Amino acid sequence: MIILGIDPGSRRIGYGVIQIQKKEALFLEAGILRITEKGRRDALLEARDRFSELIDRFQPAILAIEKLYFVRNQKTGLEVAEARGVILGVAVGKGLEIKEYTPNEIKAGVTGYGFADKRAVAKMVKLILKRPDLNLIDDATDALAVALIAGRTPPPS
Amino acid sequence: MIILGIDPGSRRIGYGVIQIQKKEALFLEAGILRITEKGRRDALLEARDRFSELIDRFQPAILAIEKLYFVRNQKTGLEVAEARGVILGVAVGKGLEIKEYTPNEIKAGVTGYGFADKRAVAKMVKLILKRPDLNLIDDATDALAVALIAGRTPPPS
Repeated sequence: MIILGIDPGSRRIGYGVIQIQKKEALFLEAGILRITEKGRRDALLEARDRFSELIDRFQPAILAIEKLYFVRNQKTGLEVAEARGVILGVAVGKGLEIKEYTPNEIKAGVTGYGFADKRAVAKMVKLILKRPDLNLIDDATDALAVALIAGRTPPPS
Repeated sequence: MIILGIDPGSRRIGYGVIQIQKKEALFLEAGILRITEKGRRDALLEARDRFSELIDRFQPAILAIEKLYFVRNQKTGLEVAEARGVILGVAVGKGLEIKEYTPNEIKAGVTGYGFADKRAVAKMVKLILKRPDLNLIDDATDALAVALIAGRTPPPS
């Protein structure tokens, strides 16, 4: 079973793809989809098309993503929520199951501690995937972390 | 030219469809798409599919929608922003142009006053469309209002 974790944003979408095999999580790919188009419609189209291609390439069964949550910077929060909507719309259209977790559930699930910092999360993600060599930027690490949590919990009914 | 105005929400999507003919705005249809599915994925699919059908039925050239803006209730704001994302993703995928306006631009454009109340907006929407008989609920009125503004301003370059 392949799981696609996403850390959404309006100009950059972090993604992490893992495969669950015999209860073990294997690293497939992680990175950032950078939205380069400037115009509103073109940027939306680019996000939609590039995310769509990612799904076609890996054929994941599940999209794992952080739950909508309160943020300090409301403008950023709204932009991220809108980007989530674009992504979720594409994902459900392609038949993916959606699994959502709070930031604390993700941190606690990966590190055992709900308020772990970014470095601790990154370290544990690499440990769990047995890939200490990975050099990941934050968005890709967060995407892998949520994918790992979705891979651990029983599938939704 | 047909314009589809949208007042987005996670459980109800207000819509208003107008046609611009010889610089006059004609009322075609307005209403609410109510999302009835309870599960997360099913509700997202329902929103996506019903909105998609609406576009197929009217073949609008433009989607008119309120800009992302700051809100008192952040939870609601995030949900609306996510619903916007689902809608925008479908619309750009179907080739629609996107036109966005602030709440004040919409109110001022319809009533001449940026802080007009809901009743004044509803009254002017019906007057402009020459349909005093229309009995519209708020979401549909707001959707028609933004469609009217998009119909008045020159198309984006």
